[in-house]
Amino acid sequence: MNYKIVMEYEGTHYKGWQRQLSTQNTIQGVLENAIFEATGETVEVNGSGRTDAGVHALGQTANFRLKNNYDELMDIINAKLPADIRIISCKPASERFHARLNVKSKTYCYKIDTSPKMNVFTRRTINHFCCDLDIEKMRLAAERLTGFHDFRAFCANKRMKKSTERNLYSIDIVQNGSEISFIYRGNGFLYNMVRILTGTIIEVGMGKTEPEDMDDILASLDRSRAGMTMPARGLTLVSVEY
Amino acid sequence: MNYKIVMEYEGTHYKGWQRQLSTQNTIQGVLENAIFEATGETVEVNGSGRTDAGVHALGQTANFRLKNNYDELMDIINAKLPADIRIISCKPASERFHARLNVKSKTYCYKIDTSPKMNVFTRRTINHFCCDLDIEKMRLAAERLTGFHDFRAFCANKRMKKSTERNLYSIDIVQNGSEISFIYRGNGFLYNMVRILTGTIIEVGMGKTEPEDMDDILASLDRSRAGMTMPARGLTLVSVEY
Repeated sequence: MNYKIVMEYEGTHYKGWQRQLSTQNTIQGVLENAIFEATGETVEVNGSGRTDAGVHALGQTANFRLKNNYDELMDIINAKLPADIRIISCKPASERFHARLNVKSKTYCYKIDTSPKMNVFTRRTINHFCCDLDIEKMRLAAERLTGFHDFRAFCANKRMKKSTERNLYSIDIVQNGSEISFIYRGNGFLYNMVRILTGTIIEVGMGKTEPEDMDDILASLDRSRAGMTMPARGLTLVSVEY
Repeated sequence: MNYKIVMEYEGTHYKGWQRQLSTQNTIQGVLENAIFEATGETVEVNGSGRTDAGVHALGQTANFRLKNNYDELMDIINAKLPADIRIISCKPASERFHARLNVKSKTYCYKIDTSPKMNVFTRRTINHFCCDLDIEKMRLAAERLTGFHDFRAFCANKRMKKSTERNLYSIDIVQNGSEISFIYRGNGFLYNMVRILTGTIIEVGMGKTEPEDMDDILASLDRSRAGMTMPARGLTLVSVEY
């Protein structure tokens, strides 16, 4: 049986999604171990995509296949998972379902807290960035970055050989007191793309660059023209749409 | 100069407020070290009261005296504090101000999450307690516990020699989706009192005891008659009133 799962995790203590030689420190590795401990079956989990070290998820999606049937499958796996990883939905899927290949779009959210003092309770998931930002200018910049573009200037992988064209459907910038959320929905994202987009938009908000500069940065295809890469801790994979 | 400070901390990694031989693991010890590193002055910080190991604060209040004047005192101390402790207000106070002796009342909040799955993002500050609770019955129990009583049955210190009489001004029970907050305001609290009160009220919500039983429990002055002690992680000292 092919299962589709949706997961929450706080990425602080992990080296990202993808399994490495030591399975202890990656979400995929820890999840595959938990499934083995719960069922005795060795599986390979397909995630919707990798999340980087320190990045969180409210709705990472994955699939895996089991030979046998289990009662309360989600609960028995959750019982083997550490407290910072939880499966929140687990359903049988069609045999053809593949969590990465079938992705239609993904939604990411980058959060910053612009207040003078870091909040001790949200510090792991909201990046403290004390700065006066011009929200309207940031929205104008975001508008110019939205759409179908070659996002090579916003890709941290310099040796990227595959296409760097993506369709960025929307960037919403939502202010709630001192907290600003940058919400991205697109058909796919390059390595560090959301963090570089956020850094570039924030530099517009700081007055370092202008909204109109976004066109040149996109056209340059040059990573050094775009803004800073924001730290992983502020980034959350909100949902994956199929 | 006598200073009054208000602090936030996430207590997860600390052995409570009060300094012990190893200063590394207590809020007071870490704070006194930070003040020394920032100013070169050795101080003794008076907290409004101890918080137990693992308990958090949004508004712990303290005072201490410095011989010299410092620019941006709060910022230079915060720069020496770990990320889970922050001073959010620092003001000169009258020479007579004492953070413990002058307390008029304190407000504590205990939070539980009653949903089936633990939330990975709030797990350090909201206690996961998956259970169907009768809110109205809990409110009736809370009403009977409010007021001036001898709370010996709700004190974890069996050898408590001082008075165990306290005035509990109010207990508010607020439901927000699957999250329930128990908010206590009183003129003082005994060792583990809020955690035992919460456990006792929750047991009413579970149907183990009835609201009317609260009168007998109070009158018994017997710790074994009251309910369970809830874990520290759900408890936050919200504010101290002077």
